[in-house]
Amino acid sequence: MKLHWSPRSPYVRKVMIAAHELGLVDRLDCVRSLAAIGTPNPAIMQDNPLSKIPALVLDDGQVLIDSSVIVEYLDNLASGTSLPAGAARWEALSRQALANGLLDLLILWRNERDKPEARQTAAWLDAFAVKAGATLDRFEQMAPAMAARSFDIGHVAVGCALSYADFRFADLGWRTGRPALADWHAGFATRPSVLATEIADA
Amino acid sequence: MKLHWSPRSPYVRKVMIAAHELGLVDRLDCVRSLAAIGTPNPAIMQDNPLSKIPALVLDDGQVLIDSSVIVEYLDNLASGTSLPAGAARWEALSRQALANGLLDLLILWRNERDKPEARQTAAWLDAFAVKAGATLDRFEQMAPAMAARSFDIGHVAVGCALSYADFRFADLGWRTGRPALADWHAGFATRPSVLATEIADA
Repeated sequence: MKLHWSPRSPYVRKVMIAAHELGLVDRLDCVRSLAAIGTPNPAIMQDNPLSKIPALVLDDGQVLIDSSVIVEYLDNLASGTSLPAGAARWEALSRQALANGLLDLLILWRNERDKPEARQTAAWLDAFAVKAGATLDRFEQMAPAMAARSFDIGHVAVGCALSYADFRFADLGWRTGRPALADWHAGFATRPSVLATEIADA
Repeated sequence: MKLHWSPRSPYVRKVMIAAHELGLVDRLDCVRSLAAIGTPNPAIMQDNPLSKIPALVLDDGQVLIDSSVIVEYLDNLASGTSLPAGAARWEALSRQALANGLLDLLILWRNERDKPEARQTAAWLDAFAVKAGATLDRFEQMAPAMAARSFDIGHVAVGCALSYADFRFADLGWRTGRPALADWHAGFATRPSVLATEIADA
């Protein structure tokens, strides 16, 4: 299977961590594909016209897009357990969605912050800070329950979002006032799947 | 169940169409909740700290977020068929993800387009047009196969994205050169679930 990949995309990292956890990493042919908001990439667009990564091209040519869909597909392929059944399924999927939403927000924030100041929208920068802070606070509340659950698709997403915050928003100091979340992330960071996919230096 | 709702959110509309299709609309207590990129809404954030809609609060207090998660939950609740099993599942989920991605893109595009010109980023506006056009072209290619499949979670998403394009990007003229997609959408637009959730005038 061909994976449109980049070493610094947190969404790609979700897929790579899942593939390591599920023993499928050798099945992935990772092709480096650069995606940026203002630069459509024809090589990606051939498979995903949105020009976003990850995109997974199956051996029969079918293209799967969206990190959450791809992780669920890999889990199914490996008869994995990263997506629990029953009531826990909705909790795991919503936790994943909250983490994906935090990532989406951080990426919009970074795009805005890196503009020349005259083109920045101050109200957006303020709003991003408020929403990111509230979402991190929610994860702090959820951390004890998260720690008690078997590692699932939602843990992958939360861990990737926090590691991305470390990578691109070190000045945010997200650990301050959030000891349970910091503890949980410290454990996450020691998993072999996480160590094997550490974000490369820029 | 309480749904954070707005008459003009295309993501909320996905949920409402699914609820109509599945016979669950009477179970939803829709609360009008305004979400905008630069204006965090405390009433939403109490349930979804990302300040995004839809968010569904179950009777036991659990919060489900992300339109795709909520639609899947409703489908499961109704023992519905909007999410097929087997290989068709991945096709439906990826089709939904492509439509969600188009919606995300159109909303970013609208946010950018509506700024004072001095704060717009021209390269982004160009990139949004290229990616939206390519995604619509992909849907045109997919339209005959889409028309042949039973109505699923992906159809809901594609239909909502195209109707949103009509609502906010009428000047895009997405039907031009895309007759199969236009035909498919004409059929979508006659469904009772779609008529019952028509976007209110601004």
